[in-house]
Amino acid sequence: MNSDTNLMEVTIKGVFMVNILGRSVPAVMLEDEEGSLMPIHIGNSEALSINSVLRNETMPRPMTHDLIVTMLERLGTRVESVFIDEKIDNIYYARLRLNKNGSSVEFDARPSDCIAIALRQNAPILINRDIFTDDSINKESFQLSKSVDDFE
Amino acid sequence: MNSDTNLMEVTIKGVFMVNILGRSVPAVMLEDEEGSLMPIHIGNSEALSINSVLRNETMPRPMTHDLIVTMLERLGTRVESVFIDEKIDNIYYARLRLNKNGSSVEFDARPSDCIAIALRQNAPILINRDIFTDDSINKESFQLSKSVDDFE
Repeated sequence: MNSDTNLMEVTIKGVFMVNILGRSVPAVMLEDEEGSLMPIHIGNSEALSINSVLRNETMPRPMTHDLIVTMLERLGTRVESVFIDEKIDNIYYARLRLNKNGSSVEFDARPSDCIAIALRQNAPILINRDIFTDDSINKESFQLSKSVDDFE
Repeated sequence: MNSDTNLMEVTIKGVFMVNILGRSVPAVMLEDEEGSLMPIHIGNSEALSINSVLRNETMPRPMTHDLIVTMLERLGTRVESVFIDEKIDNIYYARLRLNKNGSSVEFDARPSDCIAIALRQNAPILINRDIFTDDSINKESFQLSKSVDDFE
């Protein structure tokens, strides 16, 4: 599937705890230029990892995504972009595009890993426009139960 | 610190839930040739990642350590070994040694990431002999509360 032409860039508003069926789970919030938001539910450790880079925190030991970025840099590779381009059975699929000596190489990955890596390299985060349109939410109706500041 | 001469190889017996101060937390269990065991407490997602490779499970989307190994392979790099060689304030520190075109490059990493990556590449897992001797446990006295089979 080549959907590059239908990709739009988003920024990351933050990681929030959202209520799903009575359970509080972390979600990373994507935001477009107009301020529309789209949540993607992620795991706890990915939430911590994304949060730590958004806050510029340094851990005593490298987190997994810090290790990835350090390895890629030392191997002379740059993260060109990441893109979330598929949704099947309510699961998002993403890809990470590396640039090595001018050639691009793509890897299947989860959105949470892609976002955690892209933020550490200031690489663009892209998403299929149709997915964003379908899954973006009304800010007012959305209960940001609490910021992940309270999340450990 | 060059402690290569004092390193011993261990295998991974599995991931278990152990009781620490009344809380059940995952631990990866290292085992030496004589069957002595040494637990290292790890996070939930690292426990799932190590468990999935021990059981040869394939996930619909690549886990973070699957992504790392795929990237390293495509970038022509091999995991030479990983080693846990320091313990400071009850926290273990480890390093990952890559081999690229015959040269070794080392990266600071957490033991859990090192183990999850090494198992996927059949790379040797080494530990400082003094650390293993100090922290290995008496199997009989140790309560393996339950296997991580029950762990989600």
